Amino acid sequence: MRYVYFTHQQKSVLGVQTAEGTKILGEESLDSLLSRGVDLVRYGAEGHGETVNPDENSYLPVLTRPGKIICVGLNYADHTSESPYAQPTYPTVFPRFNSSLLAHNQPIILPKLSDSLDYEGELAVILKSGGRYITAEEALDCVAGYALFNDASVREYQFITPQWTVGKNFDATGAFGPELVTADELPRGAKGLRLETRVNGNVVQSASTDDMLFDVATLISTLSEAITLEAGDVIVTGTPAGVGFGMNPKSYLKEGDIVEVSVEQIGTLRNPVALEK
Amino acid sequence: MRYVYFTHQQKSVLGVQTAEGTKILGEESLDSLLSRGVDLVRYGAEGHGETVNPDENSYLPVLTRPGKIICVGLNYADHTSESPYAQPTYPTVFPRFNSSLLAHNQPIILPKLSDSLDYEGELAVILKSGGRYITAEEALDCVAGYALFNDASVREYQFITPQWTVGKNFDATGAFGPELVTADELPRGAKGLRLETRVNGNVVQSASTDDMLFDVATLISTLSEAITLEAGDVIVTGTPAGVGFGMNPKSYLKEGDIVEVSVEQIGTLRNPVALEK
Repeated sequence: MRYVYFTHQQKSVLGVQTAEGTKILGEESLDSLLSRGVDLVRYGAEGHGETVNPDENSYLPVLTRPGKIICVGLNYADHTSESPYAQPTYPTVFPRFNSSLLAHNQPIILPKLSDSLDYEGELAVILKSGGRYITAEEALDCVAGYALFNDASVREYQFITPQWTVGKNFDATGAFGPELVTADELPRGAKGLRLETRVNGNVVQSASTDDMLFDVATLISTLSEAITLEAGDVIVTGTPAGVGFGMNPKSYLKEGDIVEVSVEQIGTLRNPVALEK
Repeated sequence: MRYVYFTHQQKSVLGVQTAEGTKILGEESLDSLLSRGVDLVRYGAEGHGETVNPDENSYLPVLTRPGKIICVGLNYADHTSESPYAQPTYPTVFPRFNSSLLAHNQPIILPKLSDSLDYEGELAVILKSGGRYITAEEALDCVAGYALFNDASVREYQFITPQWTVGKNFDATGAFGPELVTADELPRGAKGLRLETRVNGNVVQSASTDDMLFDVATLISTLSEAITLEAGDVIVTGTPAGVGFGMNPKSYLKEGDIVEVSVEQIGTLRNPVALEK
């Protein structure tokens, strides 16, 4: 199933993609469905409402209030090489607060404070269950589905202190969407899929999800040794080489740029860049 | 007003301290009241229920599902000196996920994975309003009140990668309580209050809240340049010198230890240390 969350006639509605187009399921969000333990593979097959075109409406982030958004840094060796860091042997984790999320087609905001806005195309994992001490073997059974994420980063603030949190949490920098694709539609663990980021149509990042140092199952298992994972939590799995910070000279996003993040079989997340008003 | 959140007759209830003892207000949480914009100074004066002793019940964290918990590191110069870091000129920020919270009197859990569990006594600020570009002059008008926090840290995991997130988010390591004290009961900005941490009765941390490098107003103002702050968000303001990691030899928490964090006029947060089962 492929879910989209968007605004239709002044309401936030959840839709599912069908052969006849996007059908409205109702007003309950994916955050709420996941917290209630609803099976998303079955749910989307039931009781459709009217057919609409979400492209003629405003998309919303696929989840808007996840319990946690755990982002993974330095998870592709070639990206670590272009960063100021040595490769850690454990997942490098930082947060996204919900206040930083934006949707497909919405503008990523270039803030007044800094012109060092950079893209990071990533695969996001949405959990349907959790717990502690989840083994790598059972970890993928916790996955509801996958989505695309642009972990856009204000580099100046990312590196202004030893912790990246502020530079990763400017308002309207975490693009999340357009669809949640349930895990059954993809290779197990979203393995072997081509991830590509384009700026104004030019390919700037291209990697296989197989290149992750800690794959989806390992991330879930390892994080759960410390932290109780819960339904609706999101893990954003890291970005490969090719960010603007790693170029010589550095190349940051400008007003009017169009950034697209694609992962094979999942889709394309597209966002323009706009100046903060 | 002083609020306590606790379990009474199998229900989570909010209480307020009065001259006659703790009176039950109802089942609505502080998270919910703050998100609805309820004035906590007035609310606690209205319609009391029965008088109970929360010490005979189980405390809950004063808020259980904050939208964000923004923790500040390296905010006391003497603590930075005992850390591996130089003093940044901007607030160093990392997250707590809600899954790490525990209440007054509950055990801080020494995890199976590591014996490097350490205390950090801190002042927590709870917001009643937010926004962007809040000036330092108006910042304190956003504060609902204050509470105590023990930002207990698993040092081995804090430093296993460049980001501290995992070592700061083990389950049952973020003690938060026992009371939310509304801002009107304290000096403006909670200035000039003595913060003290004791382990088994021995004073290990002692500082004035005046020693913070970025005070409460500055933290709110500075963070709001990047991030939309919201009612119910929590800012945990950092710890002074005296942590076990800074001792020679290092001295970590052990099973059966009792850790107390006190701030003048706010109270004492007490937690035993227990082994993970």
